[in-house]
Amino acid sequence: MIYLTRRENFNAAHKLYRPDWTEEQNQKEFGKCANPNWHGHNYSLFVTVKGEVGRDTGYLVNLKDLSALIKTLITDKLDHKNLNLDVDFMRGKMASTEVLAVAIFEQLKSPVSKLGGELHCVKVQETENNFVEYYGGNKLM
Amino acid sequence: MIYLTRRENFNAAHKLYRPDWTEEQNQKEFGKCANPNWHGHNYSLFVTVKGEVGRDTGYLVNLKDLSALIKTLITDKLDHKNLNLDVDFMRGKMASTEVLAVAIFEQLKSPVSKLGGELHCVKVQETENNFVEYYGGNKLM
Amino acid sequence: MIYLTRRENFNAAHKLYRPDWTEEQNQKEFGKCANPNWHGHNYSLFVTVKGEVGRDTGYLVNLKDLSALIKTLITDKLDHKNLNLDVDFMRGKMASTEVLAVAIFEQLKSPVSKLGGELHCVKVQETENNFVEYYGGNKLM
Amino acid sequence: MIYLTRRENFNAAHKLYRPDWTEEQNQKEFGKCANPNWHGHNYSLFVTVKGEVGRDTGYLVNLKDLSALIKTLITDKLDHKNLNLDVDFMRGKMASTEVLAVAIFEQLKSPVSKLGGELHCVKVQETENNFVEYYGGNKLM
Amino acid sequence: MIYLTRRENFNAAHKLYRPDWTEEQNQKEFGKCANPNWHGHNYSLFVTVKGEVGRDTGYLVNLKDLSALIKTLITDKLDHKNLNLDVDFMRGKMASTEVLAVAIFEQLKSPVSKLGGELHCVKVQETENNFVEYYGGNKLM
Amino acid sequence: MIYLTRRENFNAAHKLYRPDWTEEQNQKEFGKCANPNWHGHNYSLFVTVKGEVGRDTGYLVNLKDLSALIKTLITDKLDHKNLNLDVDFMRGKMASTEVLAVAIFEQLKSPVSKLGGELHCVKVQETENNFVEYYGGNKLM
Repeated sequence: MIYLTRRENFNAAHKLYRPDWTEEQNQKEFGKCANPNWHGHNYSLFVTVKGEVGRDTGYLVNLKDLSALIKTLITDKLDHKNLNLDVDFMRGKMASTEVLAVAIFEQLKSPVSKLGGELHCVKVQETENNFVEYYGGNKLM
Repeated sequence: MIYLTRRENFNAAHKLYRPDWTEEQNQKEFGKCANPNWHGHNYSLFVTVKGEVGRDTGYLVNLKDLSALIKTLITDKLDHKNLNLDVDFMRGKMASTEVLAVAIFEQLKSPVSKLGGELHCVKVQETENNFVEYYGGNKLM
Repeated sequence: MIYLTRRENFNAAHKLYRPDWTEEQNQKEFGKCANPNWHGHNYSLFVTVKGEVGRDTGYLVNLKDLSALIKTLITDKLDHKNLNLDVDFMRGKMASTEVLAVAIFEQLKSPVSKLGGELHCVKVQETENNFVEYYGGNKLM
Repeated sequence: MIYLTRRENFNAAHKLYRPDWTEEQNQKEFGKCANPNWHGHNYSLFVTVKGEVGRDTGYLVNLKDLSALIKTLITDKLDHKNLNLDVDFMRGKMASTEVLAVAIFEQLKSPVSKLGGELHCVKVQETENNFVEYYGGNKLM
Repeated sequence: MIYLTRRENFNAAHKLYRPDWTEEQNQKEFGKCANPNWHGHNYSLFVTVKGEVGRDTGYLVNLKDLSALIKTLITDKLDHKNLNLDVDFMRGKMASTEVLAVAIFEQLKSPVSKLGGELHCVKVQETENNFVEYYGGNKLM
Repeated sequence: MIYLTRRENFNAAHKLYRPDWTEEQNQKEFGKCANPNWHGHNYSLFVTVKGEVGRDTGYLVNLKDLSALIKTLITDKLDHKNLNLDVDFMRGKMASTEVLAVAIFEQLKSPVSKLGGELHCVKVQETENNFVEYYGGNKLM
């Protein structure tokens, strides 16, 4: 059992707010993250796949295939986009790092398994000071 | 003559587009950077001051004062904001890294001189792959 | 179950030595880390909290609150301080990265739970070449 | 139980190919990684040891000893070498990041235990965009 | 006058040696960098262009065009290649960072001018501990 | 004319204070940097040498020699030391980044010229947010 991680980047706008809350409620809960005119980040996405090392190839999954999969299913939809408005798999959801990590995990789980590995973790880094990790329904400890 | 550089960060939304151009023209020139619903970045701002080392203090300018100045005049106005819509000193300008670096230089030039140094360079890093440097009216070479 | 990590930095002096050992014993065991006049580091502290994503907010805990908590309880006490001499929760302890990580975990465990998450891991990075992780009494594997 | 990680770097050449396959098969499977004249990387190796904190020393294992061990057994054999041709413990193996991580784990497992800790994880980072982790025969989850 | 820098990466094998010297001479001068079976690096290439900010676009040169130019002329020829054997513009030259920086500058000087800027500097970073900058025939000071 | 830069690291304690000032004056001017019990940093030192590329070797100066010179003359004296108390070339000086950069430049200027290059710049990075550059008596612009 080995763990392989691929990083892909995307730059996106978002805000934290609830349309069913007043401006004041949003400001109180989310502070500057609720700026009505949006703000944005350079996000880094780390996708970790686990599985056995292939005898012929010496690798777990082909990194080119994994990268292409992440680009097609995830970063092409997120890069230079608005996480609240432009992304099909984020419709009706809060555009927080936590919700985004879970949503990406759900998008990737089945397709990754077809590459021959199992999706282990999705990590989304929003700034150099904060990131979120999601391991699916399993608990790490 | 010594050069002191302070880094401050801000996270902002922007897009590259001209309101006097059609959507097609903007797409053609600016590509995905013209996404109507915005995108964003974690920007790093590097402000370089030059001058003589103070005999009493051993430093060029007090780093706390320089940091406070940059925060008050620049990053408080840019952080968690929209560069096209929310920033007084960017009104009516393209929200490109180049224009932003020039605008920040102009905001800081006079106030930095009151701290006892001379503003040498403003560097704005948009992603790990691109940044802009502006040295005022002077040519570096 | 999701994992959220916040980084905070602090710059501190320390040395590795036992006051009940001779200078020679300290030098033999700790080498240059026992320099009597101290040395220091830019430490990075990574605090990981685990829990459920809030339905209303889309996040695990409010990052502003988590950051404020870490600053008040930990980094305000460590930043620009001497780990051997100035820190209440390090009194009488070795100022090693391992002991520091355990001490920080113990300081944060109960207060973090009041934010609505569970403290999962404290990671202390001393240099770009070494860091320590502590997960409380639980074993990771 | 605490986890201590040491980073060491090495710069090496390698290629992904099977000598029992034709050039075409290798190109098809491994793409540009199969370039006959080799390519190379700045690798970072992260070795994580777990165990109890020593009462006298405040650390898990002496970092100098751990670093010296990794250098003698691993990085002196890999640095400025060809992973396919020059490394005794890689003979007859694919020079992939996955196989390398497993091979390094096997080289270090017993010697690390003599330092007083238990080898927990070997992480090999090939580029800023991909890395592999191996935890021995144990499964992380 | 503004300075815009674009980073592109490539991973390559090389060695430092002179075919007209004996193995012993090469070892004496170049040490482990002369390993006959090659070694390699993750190189980062920073290309800096200077010029005026365009009135219509707000930028110096279109970053997409600059990136595409660097890829076509430089990194496609260097990435996953052997700097001594595979690169047309390095034929018969030492594969040192210094020579590489000069050679890349010469390849890019004329094409960059057609984008509307002037090539200011080529920086080649070989490891986190060393890099080379070349400014063409001009002296920086 | 080419510019070659070598990075070396050192971890040191220091404080900003004047022994001829009262505790209150030091606190007022230097704030937390004047903590009587010291604090510390992971410093990075970047030494830039300029000159011509050697015809035989393809490099400006031998990087091993440059690294050894910096270690012997500078970082062996600074690493795991107290900048105010332990360093011969800092005696009687303020332990600020500015003063340190100038002092290192003066230590290296003559020895570097014996390697066959000319010392161009000494850059001292104190934290990820601030650094100082010194170019000797020459002005950059």
